[in-house]
Amino acid sequence: MVIVMAPGASSDTIDSIVDLVASVGGEAYVTRGVSRTIIGLVGDVQRFESLDLHALPGVADVLRISTPYKLVSRENTAQRSVVRVAGVPIGGDHMTLIAGPCAVETPEQTLEAALMARRAGASLLRGGAYKPRTSPYAFQGLGETGLKILADVRDETGLPIVTEVVDAADVELVASYADMLQIGTRNMQNFALLQAAGEAGKPVLLKRGMSATIEEWLMAAEYIAQRGNLDIVLCERGIRTFEKSTRNTLDISAVPVAQQLSHLPVIVDPSHSGGKRDLVLPLSRAAIAVGADGIIVDVHPAPETALCDGPQALTAADLDELAHLVNTLPPLVGRTLTPVPSAAPAGV
Amino acid sequence: MVIVMAPGASSDTIDSIVDLVASVGGEAYVTRGVSRTIIGLVGDVQRFESLDLHALPGVADVLRISTPYKLVSRENTAQRSVVRVAGVPIGGDHMTLIAGPCAVETPEQTLEAALMARRAGASLLRGGAYKPRTSPYAFQGLGETGLKILADVRDETGLPIVTEVVDAADVELVASYADMLQIGTRNMQNFALLQAAGEAGKPVLLKRGMSATIEEWLMAAEYIAQRGNLDIVLCERGIRTFEKSTRNTLDISAVPVAQQLSHLPVIVDPSHSGGKRDLVLPLSRAAIAVGADGIIVDVHPAPETALCDGPQALTAADLDELAHLVNTLPPLVGRTLTPVPSAAPAGV
Amino acid sequence: MVIVMAPGASSDTIDSIVDLVASVGGEAYVTRGVSRTIIGLVGDVQRFESLDLHALPGVADVLRISTPYKLVSRENTAQRSVVRVAGVPIGGDHMTLIAGPCAVETPEQTLEAALMARRAGASLLRGGAYKPRTSPYAFQGLGETGLKILADVRDETGLPIVTEVVDAADVELVASYADMLQIGTRNMQNFALLQAAGEAGKPVLLKRGMSATIEEWLMAAEYIAQRGNLDIVLCERGIRTFEKSTRNTLDISAVPVAQQLSHLPVIVDPSHSGGKRDLVLPLSRAAIAVGADGIIVDVHPAPETALCDGPQALTAADLDELAHLVNTLPPLVGRTLTPVPSAAPAGV
Amino acid sequence: MVIVMAPGASSDTIDSIVDLVASVGGEAYVTRGVSRTIIGLVGDVQRFESLDLHALPGVADVLRISTPYKLVSRENTAQRSVVRVAGVPIGGDHMTLIAGPCAVETPEQTLEAALMARRAGASLLRGGAYKPRTSPYAFQGLGETGLKILADVRDETGLPIVTEVVDAADVELVASYADMLQIGTRNMQNFALLQAAGEAGKPVLLKRGMSATIEEWLMAAEYIAQRGNLDIVLCERGIRTFEKSTRNTLDISAVPVAQQLSHLPVIVDPSHSGGKRDLVLPLSRAAIAVGADGIIVDVHPAPETALCDGPQALTAADLDELAHLVNTLPPLVGRTLTPVPSAAPAGV
Repeated sequence: MVIVMAPGASSDTIDSIVDLVASVGGEAYVTRGVSRTIIGLVGDVQRFESLDLHALPGVADVLRISTPYKLVSRENTAQRSVVRVAGVPIGGDHMTLIAGPCAVETPEQTLEAALMARRAGASLLRGGAYKPRTSPYAFQGLGETGLKILADVRDETGLPIVTEVVDAADVELVASYADMLQIGTRNMQNFALLQAAGEAGKPVLLKRGMSATIEEWLMAAEYIAQRGNLDIVLCERGIRTFEKSTRNTLDISAVPVAQQLSHLPVIVDPSHSGGKRDLVLPLSRAAIAVGADGIIVDVHPAPETALCDGPQALTAADLDELAHLVNTLPPLVGRTLTPVPSAAPAGV
Repeated sequence: MVIVMAPGASSDTIDSIVDLVASVGGEAYVTRGVSRTIIGLVGDVQRFESLDLHALPGVADVLRISTPYKLVSRENTAQRSVVRVAGVPIGGDHMTLIAGPCAVETPEQTLEAALMARRAGASLLRGGAYKPRTSPYAFQGLGETGLKILADVRDETGLPIVTEVVDAADVELVASYADMLQIGTRNMQNFALLQAAGEAGKPVLLKRGMSATIEEWLMAAEYIAQRGNLDIVLCERGIRTFEKSTRNTLDISAVPVAQQLSHLPVIVDPSHSGGKRDLVLPLSRAAIAVGADGIIVDVHPAPETALCDGPQALTAADLDELAHLVNTLPPLVGRTLTPVPSAAPAGV
Repeated sequence: MVIVMAPGASSDTIDSIVDLVASVGGEAYVTRGVSRTIIGLVGDVQRFESLDLHALPGVADVLRISTPYKLVSRENTAQRSVVRVAGVPIGGDHMTLIAGPCAVETPEQTLEAALMARRAGASLLRGGAYKPRTSPYAFQGLGETGLKILADVRDETGLPIVTEVVDAADVELVASYADMLQIGTRNMQNFALLQAAGEAGKPVLLKRGMSATIEEWLMAAEYIAQRGNLDIVLCERGIRTFEKSTRNTLDISAVPVAQQLSHLPVIVDPSHSGGKRDLVLPLSRAAIAVGADGIIVDVHPAPETALCDGPQALTAADLDELAHLVNTLPPLVGRTLTPVPSAAPAGV
Repeated sequence: MVIVMAPGASSDTIDSIVDLVASVGGEAYVTRGVSRTIIGLVGDVQRFESLDLHALPGVADVLRISTPYKLVSRENTAQRSVVRVAGVPIGGDHMTLIAGPCAVETPEQTLEAALMARRAGASLLRGGAYKPRTSPYAFQGLGETGLKILADVRDETGLPIVTEVVDAADVELVASYADMLQIGTRNMQNFALLQAAGEAGKPVLLKRGMSATIEEWLMAAEYIAQRGNLDIVLCERGIRTFEKSTRNTLDISAVPVAQQLSHLPVIVDPSHSGGKRDLVLPLSRAAIAVGADGIIVDVHPAPETALCDGPQALTAADLDELAHLVNTLPPLVGRTLTPVPSAAPAGV
């Protein structure tokens, strides 16, 4: 059960509802969004109904939601959400291109990749400073040094940055640099990390676990939402199957299915799903055609020297075709490419 | 190792090569295509090389192929194949729409579905007279009665027919009615059936096994090819994964991957992969955008009464959107919709 | 709904029930077992109930079965079945060892493997004359020549033979030699083959499909049962998973689960599931300990020259340990090893 | 490449090796075990070989290890390891029973479950105070209150405790109460948590990720080992497959495979893999028979009221059979049940 508060409901009003719920043995999870506050109730629904919650001051609506995820469910939410990352919209009628290097390696490589991203039409820059790697002996990312490089490149290019965080203890630090926090496939059920990200005050890009069902993915998003953050973008990045010719299997159906079940935007990562450069453009076309709210693509100025996932990064030679498809395909599914931000942001 | 014969090579010439191969302990599989004959060699490659096959009369080329599938491999075959089904092309620059009912139930339902198919832009009619069902207590199809209905509807509508065969013993009968034989997902490794289909003289639509890798799928195609039939179209129809919100998971990457590995056309079945009507059009868009050579779609005049897979069949209300997308999307990927055959075929 | 006929019910009595069921729009599937006849009804249960079937002459019982498989369900069947293969029991308190070569190659190799099987304690001989192979270029088995070898070895060793059939058209021939028909993992949903095996008058060993659920496996068994043959033994042989260090993943839980759901015996193939010699004995111990009704094991006198699956075949060096475990472990789970038949059968 | 130091090698000696490795551009990971120190080298092997490491003071051996996991590999380690948890051994010739409630709920329930565990023959007590749950609205465990209950119950029963930790930030706190840290299936690739556990000075029970390969599992163990902790026990707890009749599929082959690849002990969790009470004892038998170093089992005095996973917990009625099997089966595979510690530990 979810209580939607009227705009401008006071903290005291909200606190009194929390107390009232507790008085019948329930728990209330308060989510303060930009425009309105939502209170998720957990406990005995019949006892909640006896409270006549509709009649309380400040309550706009009381909803029963049948799915196990409440706040991210599309039930009772007519419109799909638009998430804004430092002003750049994802969702609604937009098709947003996010691009950049898999890992931040040097200032030069990061800047060059960011300029490639702009050229292709990207409005957000991706790049990892903390890399979760299967082997402890593999390159683990530059850490805070990488975050500083990203911040510098943002200043130069005007592209807000999306970057991964892998440990709850790092969330505050990463959020102090990033415009959007990315949670990777291996951490989709790292619940402490999800909760920390929910409290960090920045939008979150939540990748699907590589063997997770869509319901588990939405439950992971609910962990973030429950901590008061509904600025979540879901990212399908391929699931594990028996097929060996691709690194993962892009579950293209997950896009319309997740969009039906949840109001959150859903984007696609064609680079990590296929794991091969020559699949990135075909899969990008498929993603846009199926109706994704965006795509996130690896680009690298010199993939053969990349410290991470070079074989899947697009090169300069691919950018024109990428630019062409992100400009021509979205209109066919009723969308417009999110424009590239101006290169010199105000005050720089 | 594969020997490509010159056009017009005589049977005697071919027989002498078969004997020569046998003389060094090898086996030769002769594939007589429309324009040329191919001989696949199995055995000790070094001994074959000692035969100096290039120099033999009638030999146009001798190819070494490193993949386990030989005749269907794209190695050494620059061009992708075009398969013609009673004159209707699949492959090349075409995007072919195949549509019709999952199962043939009555003459009226089949005709109505065929007219729906035409209206949407289909150039081939699908429809099952033999249905492989998980339960022995489920509707198993009308058998030959169904084939006759299909033949009548072909006469009325001009649409050549694609229909499934489930047992090697039925191949001759089904081939006497059908323009293209379909082999279903559960029979992808029914090798006796594959071999019988390879000898039936009709093009074959080979669905991917629901847990098969792409390599296993191509090996199944090789079974057909090895019996002298290279008119094979591959059909991706969804694979089994942990995701429960769709019946199967459409492996959209399989299209470009199979097209890189094999010269055969690759089409997509968005109806059986998603298993839900409202996923069919988004998945059709994804399939065309990724570069599929065609799509095969269930349509039914009254899906709520369908004896098989009603929930995934498109209805009359969906046809305009289907027609729109098969006309507008292919040009964006350099293809043209295969035109609908004229309604009244010559002599009818 | 299933009608159990009294022992000795006449054909006329049975036919009249079939007609009665048809008169209300239903279908009746008659299964004539050794001791009694069972009639499976498909159609509208309420209309069947209006017929007052209990009161009809010759009817012993009328059962409603809630599972989709009826005849093989354990619902309403208190006791688990014992299947006899030329007199050798599988099921009940027995633990039956089946052993032999993966493929019949020569008379000598087959005889030697059969003697190895006897030495280890096997009461049945396995061996393939028809091999379903992923590649059309791989060894496909000796066909009828192989069946004759098996029959000769049976004469010499006294071991009844279990051998695979891969095409419905071959069932009659194979059944004329074999004591038990094996249906392999790739053919678990080859429904024409299942039905033909159901009519062949020989017990059937039904391997689980490599990606099949237990319910689908029992539905496949139902196809056989529905044609009048309840002498079915289920064989768990490993399922496909992401794990690469074993050929398949032995689903050891499938044994107790299938035994709870069905009255049919359930055996385990530790050779094909692991795919490696050094896993066969540990997995055999696990299978017996979990409560399997038997195990089926590859043995080969010279695995390094085997035409099929040599790396998983036990050698002479392994036989003592195999003999030890099949003799010592079954008593711990309340079972006794089925004794090895006498070497020289009557009249030989 | 791994350097094994002689017993008693000084810190200075070790430091000088680290510096030497760094001088040629490599990285050295020092692991100080109880009896000897190991240094894992990452970098250019040829340059390492030029250093003539064998000749350095304090170096006992220099090993090249071909697997991607180095410290946990069985390569070059003849003997399998024994891990001691507050004196209780796991591995070697032991078969160790770990039992207790899935979640700590109350002091009474925990004590009662611990007494049940003792009665069945357990030498270690399991119980969760931090529960990773798919839903943020499900019971998340008692936290530190639960840890205190466990410590009290340890004092009363003498059973050392194994308990889960879900966030790197909690490791120090949990380690201050626990005798062994458990890392759960969802956190198998939570690398920050693995590293923190590697530095906590307590043995670690590492569950396999529910879709992880054995190699990925061993790489996760390597993350712990690399931080200086080789007291790791691997726990197979079932993997995700298409089978729906069990919660997960126990990969019984993973036990011998992981034991061949790694020197670490491998135990089995039959409760979480099957998810059903009536599968726990059969799967326990299979686990011991296949050669597992231990089993970890849920027991609960009143499963119908359990806050977590009640349906899989054994009850008082099952204990005699459990006790019987853990006493009778291990000798058949050359093992002895680890004895139950004395109830009143010294000083209590």
